[in-house]
Amino acid sequence: MDSKAKEKIEKIIYDRKRAHKFFVENSRVYKSFVEMEERTFSKGHLDKKSKELIALGISIHKNCESCMEWHMKQALDSGATKEQILEAIEVGMEMGGGPATVSSRFALQVLEHYTNQD
Amino acid sequence: MDSKAKEKIEKIIYDRKRAHKFFVENSRVYKSFVEMEERTFSKGHLDKKSKELIALGISIHKNCESCMEWHMKQALDSGATKEQILEAIEVGMEMGGGPATVSSRFALQVLEHYTNQD
Amino acid sequence: MDSKAKEKIEKIIYDRKRAHKFFVENSRVYKSFVEMEERTFSKGHLDKKSKELIALGISIHKNCESCMEWHMKQALDSGATKEQILEAIEVGMEMGGGPATVSSRFALQVLEHYTNQD
Amino acid sequence: MDSKAKEKIEKIIYDRKRAHKFFVENSRVYKSFVEMEERTFSKGHLDKKSKELIALGISIHKNCESCMEWHMKQALDSGATKEQILEAIEVGMEMGGGPATVSSRFALQVLEHYTNQD
Amino acid sequence: MDSKAKEKIEKIIYDRKRAHKFFVENSRVYKSFVEMEERTFSKGHLDKKSKELIALGISIHKNCESCMEWHMKQALDSGATKEQILEAIEVGMEMGGGPATVSSRFALQVLEHYTNQD
Amino acid sequence: MDSKAKEKIEKIIYDRKRAHKFFVENSRVYKSFVEMEERTFSKGHLDKKSKELIALGISIHKNCESCMEWHMKQALDSGATKEQILEAIEVGMEMGGGPATVSSRFALQVLEHYTNQD
Repeated sequence: MDSKAKEKIEKIIYDRKRAHKFFVENSRVYKSFVEMEERTFSKGHLDKKSKELIALGISIHKNCESCMEWHMKQALDSGATKEQILEAIEVGMEMGGGPATVSSRFALQVLEHYTNQD
Repeated sequence: MDSKAKEKIEKIIYDRKRAHKFFVENSRVYKSFVEMEERTFSKGHLDKKSKELIALGISIHKNCESCMEWHMKQALDSGATKEQILEAIEVGMEMGGGPATVSSRFALQVLEHYTNQD
Repeated sequence: MDSKAKEKIEKIIYDRKRAHKFFVENSRVYKSFVEMEERTFSKGHLDKKSKELIALGISIHKNCESCMEWHMKQALDSGATKEQILEAIEVGMEMGGGPATVSSRFALQVLEHYTNQD
Repeated sequence: MDSKAKEKIEKIIYDRKRAHKFFVENSRVYKSFVEMEERTFSKGHLDKKSKELIALGISIHKNCESCMEWHMKQALDSGATKEQILEAIEVGMEMGGGPATVSSRFALQVLEHYTNQD
Repeated sequence: MDSKAKEKIEKIIYDRKRAHKFFVENSRVYKSFVEMEERTFSKGHLDKKSKELIALGISIHKNCESCMEWHMKQALDSGATKEQILEAIEVGMEMGGGPATVSSRFALQVLEHYTNQD
Repeated sequence: MDSKAKEKIEKIIYDRKRAHKFFVENSRVYKSFVEMEERTFSKGHLDKKSKELIALGISIHKNCESCMEWHMKQALDSGATKEQILEAIEVGMEMGGGPATVSSRFALQVLEHYTNQD
């Protein structure tokens, strides 16, 4: 785990919390989005883990680094294993070709960040 | 199930088969892609159904109609229920906003096509 | 106004209404999205027309045809003139290059559909 | 060459000509774009064929069907062979994964349209 | 306003000016683009502010950070208020879902940079 | 050539090598992708240089910075001149509008990095 990756991940988390606070206080549109998000990822006919892995695949395809960080953490907290995360990344690669292999590098750093911590 | 949707789905399948035959015969690059695809979606630490639902979410986000048709059919054949397909579509919506609700219309038509057939 | 464009626009409207009905009845996630949409486009510090023109620009850039149809109609109903619509399309072109000039063709057909009707 | 593909290609050409005429007459922004386009694709340190093949690769990656039709025709008219077109399509596939293999189906139909005509 | 955001914004401006100088001197294509840009954003049937807000919405949807910086500054200089900027960001969110809420974080930092300066 | 650009390019190369090693050892899907890549860019009816320039154009359009670095280096090593690289960048600009002019800034830094070295 290199220190720049760690720093980048922590910056993402800091920026997310800070902006989240602002938008919750200042944007009714954002509040609807938060409700939409909660409904999307709560357990239904699919469990939370499966839903988060779908979002992780989309995040890699879209190259949204903050999304990768968030949905991978949620997937891990819902019981996803490292091997399962890797297979979700592989689906992203198949659907995105070369640029998705680039996105997957950051996903790998996030995976190391959350699974090598202790 | 309206007839235009049925016609569109059948056209997608026809075009896919025809192009697949051509590219397998004429492109070594495409053959590597087919191998990549097979490895991606075969059972591993995630079952095939979970992988196909990830690909379905990406397909909705990307608005790739042929991808929606293919991966939804594969998900259904791997045991996904209508309710589970809908929740994968919902993840696509959350990750894609307004344009993803548009993509979801075609996904819905494909779902009706494959689940109302008998 | 050629008949194929008219037919395409009417198909988009039909598909939207049909899917909207289904998703409102079957998806709590979609219902949150609808609330988000209403809050986004209601009059605030910007009037509805200005907001719809922003969405139109995004629709052209993203090449979401159903979005173009919807947001252009909303913009026209909110008082946008043909000339203003064209300038919003131009912003989409500047931000999207060649492919956005392609998207703009459909936008033009929608504009003709709604302004040459009487 | 199936008749629906032919019809689709001819519709694309018709729509392009019609919109081009309108935008040239009504949009100074579009006229700047046309100048930009002419400068981009005129012979320089790269010949026109090489430039059109770059644009074809982008068109496949972006799934812009009208762009595929236009740039492939320009590449063929500049001396590109069927085999060279196919290799440009392959670059698009490598850079775009699954969805690019879908785009490539239409590219293949355009290729057949222009090379099997006589 | 955190110092990293400030540094990032200043880096964007530095890189833009430097590259702009190079491309104006070395690329006739780029010069056409600059002309296209000037025509797009000059006052017409829409005022400059409205056009810049459309471009800002596209920038958020596309996650183009330098575009956000540029078009938000132009919008502010054309008289847009903080509240109007926020509503343009909200349109971007509605059209882009989760990843657009991520883009909006940088937009918020740019907004703070330009409105809290004095 | 500013030092931050150099640092960024070296970070991209470091991250690529590190992730490449991991994925080759842990992902059969990635190994198929590597085979696909090798087949795509090996000399065929187009030479390697022409193929790399297509990939460079796509990289600019897609704003994949690591892809720009990789494919520009490959193009230069295959004999592309600075002037030819610039014309490939121009195709990317024409196909991508404003955001592609932003991507082109990094492409320019990579070009300087590899051509001003000695």
